[in-house]
Amino acid sequence: MQFQQIRGATVKLNFAGTSFLIDPFFAPKDAYPPLSACHHPNLRWPTAELPLPTQEIVKDVDAVIITHLHPDHLDEFAIKALPKNLPIFAQDETDAEVIRQLGFADVRVLSYDGTDFNQVKLTRIDCLHGHPETTQKYYDMMNLRGTASGIIFSAPNEPVFYLAGDTIWFDKVAQAIEKYQPQIIALNAADAQFTDSWSIIMNEADILKVVQAAPKAKIVITHMDAVPHAMLTRQDVKKMVAKYNLSAQILIPEDGEILSLR
Amino acid sequence: MQFQQIRGATVKLNFAGTSFLIDPFFAPKDAYPPLSACHHPNLRWPTAELPLPTQEIVKDVDAVIITHLHPDHLDEFAIKALPKNLPIFAQDETDAEVIRQLGFADVRVLSYDGTDFNQVKLTRIDCLHGHPETTQKYYDMMNLRGTASGIIFSAPNEPVFYLAGDTIWFDKVAQAIEKYQPQIIALNAADAQFTDSWSIIMNEADILKVVQAAPKAKIVITHMDAVPHAMLTRQDVKKMVAKYNLSAQILIPEDGEILSLR
Repeated sequence: MQFQQIRGATVKLNFAGTSFLIDPFFAPKDAYPPLSACHHPNLRWPTAELPLPTQEIVKDVDAVIITHLHPDHLDEFAIKALPKNLPIFAQDETDAEVIRQLGFADVRVLSYDGTDFNQVKLTRIDCLHGHPETTQKYYDMMNLRGTASGIIFSAPNEPVFYLAGDTIWFDKVAQAIEKYQPQIIALNAADAQFTDSWSIIMNEADILKVVQAAPKAKIVITHMDAVPHAMLTRQDVKKMVAKYNLSAQILIPEDGEILSLR
Repeated sequence: MQFQQIRGATVKLNFAGTSFLIDPFFAPKDAYPPLSACHHPNLRWPTAELPLPTQEIVKDVDAVIITHLHPDHLDEFAIKALPKNLPIFAQDETDAEVIRQLGFADVRVLSYDGTDFNQVKLTRIDCLHGHPETTQKYYDMMNLRGTASGIIFSAPNEPVFYLAGDTIWFDKVAQAIEKYQPQIIALNAADAQFTDSWSIIMNEADILKVVQAAPKAKIVITHMDAVPHAMLTRQDVKKMVAKYNLSAQILIPEDGEILSLR
């Protein structure tokens, strides 16, 4: 499999010969006004440019996967750039209906039992996108659902790949690792937070928990250096990798970088 | 008031002329075997020596406050070093009874309405010492309660001082700041964690939440560089203070250092 880090949570994945675009977020740098309810309240976002033109990102994509409908996972720039007949996978019927309303003609839904696309089986795994007791008010304010999903990718002659999605460490992540024994895991570990929420995606300690639960897996760390509410940078994660001597297990691709993994 | 950082959560506080010893943990460096269920499973602890001889720490103490009965807040070395007739404040009757069993003759109990000692009013504030869903199994394994307390100190001609205790950021911390408007706040912000728990005391983002909630308070950061399950060091907090330009508000005393605060 090939994992190309685009920017933030946006990833282009070649898996068993099928090209998936995950969580397209295509706004140019600084397109959006600051997020006042976070610890960097003056920061416009995205905080980095895309590493490639959107036409090049979209080229040859066979299907798009949208793990949840937060604006850093599908934005107006991506909606414009994506061909309306491209197969789109939504996490559930609720998100699928919204995506159909945006004009997409072929919207499909992930399932916990696995959904096939070409040779690839996609299995939905639940996320915990922050603790509802501290995040609900923010999601309500922004009219966003808190529900998000991860995915297990499996296919003959490919490693099992677990894209954990926008989640903190919790029992369903542990169970997914136990059940599917992924050889490759991608973690959105930018430790995003609202002003008085706890972490809404993984932080450094959560990375260590995944390391502990999946000591033989390669772990790709992503989502950093793109959104304003992130508390963790690539530089922070690199220091942590050095401190805990994890350089053989943890990969931190730059925007645009392609990792060939097996 | 004078706040003397001893080591870890151990603090000597002079408040309105009364000397309080808080959370006496007197073991010499490396006295205890590693805590296997944490991210530094080979680290004996405490990880630093006491900065002063225990006789000097205990000298002239008028009362001891034990915020909860975890071993880094009261240990066998402290139990031996403390005069058995010294007034001891426990967070509740359950802890008080255990402390009486240890041979202490004058054990008193904090209350939410305030308990007077000399000129000082001590008011109990609840802690959330980690999320029970991820910490209970560890506390059960070690036969420890998860209940812990913070304290509001108030007296004529002293600033209101909030010792937050072993807690993460949660609504009762926010409410205590709102209600008592402390001018000085001490945070046990070493981000201690068990292997697959979330944070059991404050982390960097929690410090920022307190900064946001109490922008005019001086904030003393403590508990670092003493226990093996801490994920945050003084050096980390210093970097964060620089990054967020908080050096006028945040103090990070070294072990043994005395801060005069008003």
